[in-house]
Amino acid sequence: MLDCIIVGSGVAGVSAGLTLKANNKSFMIFGSKNLSEKITKAELIKNYVGLSDITGQDFCKQIQAQLKDADIQIQEEKVSGVYALKEKFGVATQEGGYYESKTVILCTGVESIKLVDGETQFLGKGVSYCATCDGFLYKDKTIAVLCTSKRLEHEIEHLSGFAKKIYLIAMYKPVEVQGENIEIIRKMPIKIDGEKRVEKVVFADRELPVDGVFVLRESIAPSVLLSGLETVDGHIKTERNMQTNIQGCFSAGDCTGRPYQYAKAVGEGNIAGHSVTAYLSENK
Amino acid sequence: MLDCIIVGSGVAGVSAGLTLKANNKSFMIFGSKNLSEKITKAELIKNYVGLSDITGQDFCKQIQAQLKDADIQIQEEKVSGVYALKEKFGVATQEGGYYESKTVILCTGVESIKLVDGETQFLGKGVSYCATCDGFLYKDKTIAVLCTSKRLEHEIEHLSGFAKKIYLIAMYKPVEVQGENIEIIRKMPIKIDGEKRVEKVVFADRELPVDGVFVLRESIAPSVLLSGLETVDGHIKTERNMQTNIQGCFSAGDCTGRPYQYAKAVGEGNIAGHSVTAYLSENK
Repeated sequence: MLDCIIVGSGVAGVSAGLTLKANNKSFMIFGSKNLSEKITKAELIKNYVGLSDITGQDFCKQIQAQLKDADIQIQEEKVSGVYALKEKFGVATQEGGYYESKTVILCTGVESIKLVDGETQFLGKGVSYCATCDGFLYKDKTIAVLCTSKRLEHEIEHLSGFAKKIYLIAMYKPVEVQGENIEIIRKMPIKIDGEKRVEKVVFADRELPVDGVFVLRESIAPSVLLSGLETVDGHIKTERNMQTNIQGCFSAGDCTGRPYQYAKAVGEGNIAGHSVTAYLSENK
Repeated sequence: MLDCIIVGSGVAGVSAGLTLKANNKSFMIFGSKNLSEKITKAELIKNYVGLSDITGQDFCKQIQAQLKDADIQIQEEKVSGVYALKEKFGVATQEGGYYESKTVILCTGVESIKLVDGETQFLGKGVSYCATCDGFLYKDKTIAVLCTSKRLEHEIEHLSGFAKKIYLIAMYKPVEVQGENIEIIRKMPIKIDGEKRVEKVVFADRELPVDGVFVLRESIAPSVLLSGLETVDGHIKTERNMQTNIQGCFSAGDCTGRPYQYAKAVGEGNIAGHSVTAYLSENK
């Protein structure tokens, strides 16, 4: 079993990984080879010690080279759920992967996530975060797909292979995914509603009857990702050593709160890596 | 009055300074143009995100260039005391300087300081941390000087110009300071003792009658530097936003606790810089 699974490949996750590597621990980092959207889009970073006025693109390239030097790979799968089991964690991905580890470090970043009314209530009862996991359940059915990022269009394509009809509530531009069964909607719904299961999506001016709703966001709200995780104002609550309220689960970076800065994320990733190391020693 | 005084020029202090600069705050950093002994002596840094396998010397050079780019100077004075006054702080230096600021960030690093029994008790009653401040008080007297670093020998020289006799308890090698009135001792004393004032230094095998004791260390214990500062196991106690128990006083880096890592210190300096900025907004 792995010593640790790091969820997220921004600078916090990378920092935690470099530290675990230095401490000779086994681990995987789940995320993107491009690290994070935030880094690649950063114009100029001025207050990161040691790198004067570096662009996000250059910072990203230097980190990719550093990871190669350190022989650390990024696992390009999207984590759909983390499960706190007895003295270990289970991590499921949208690609259908399942992994286990003694500890986890959540470095999921922060996305301004406004949950849709009814989203949490109907989770598993018609609401799904994972197209590849649950798409087959909606063969020849009518579904709504709420999507916030162009990078997730491949999941919509996947769904269009099953569903009879897709209402694509697209919160990004431009929409490039195509399909005869896809109808694009540019408004946010007011709520997801139904009796025992999802029956409809309600907008200000109309209601659409659906059999299910897929919500595709770059990141999943932390409290949805790992059940029972304590959050404060949408941020994961951590102690000074970056441990969360769940034993063996640590967190670092923007997801733990402001300031949303590279230096802060790197520092917290480092602390989390060391705290995992200490935790593993204490819980042999 | 300055917005902030940063005590210490290691990476935590530099990180705080870069952030305060970005936030357009006025501040001074007290320390050394060589940043910190720890950096210059670091062989190879492997887990600092963005800089692959960099030596301490190269890291130091890059930071010095970055400070120049950002137009940040280091004030080469050694802080001897920080005083929490009404809604401001006073900072005194061994060079005789006195400065005031609305906030302070303590980035004093960590030195394994084992206080000598009686040291705190007789502080100001024969025990002094500052040769240039108090040396003249011991003209033609007999003193003991406990010194832990070769870099502080100039202070011993200063004292040898006043004192009749100096017992130099030297906890470093090689000793290069010379003087007819200097006698070198290679043992740590058990205690400093006396009635109302210092009268003697006690060793396992003998006692030396003295009029005063100078204790010269690279850093002053935080709780001695700023009276009332709460510490835990010799580390400054801080909240997640790096504030200490004293209002307006923040801290970052090794002095707040383990891990003693560059990434952690940089992250904490960043957070402290942002917390000072928020504090200044709230306390206009």
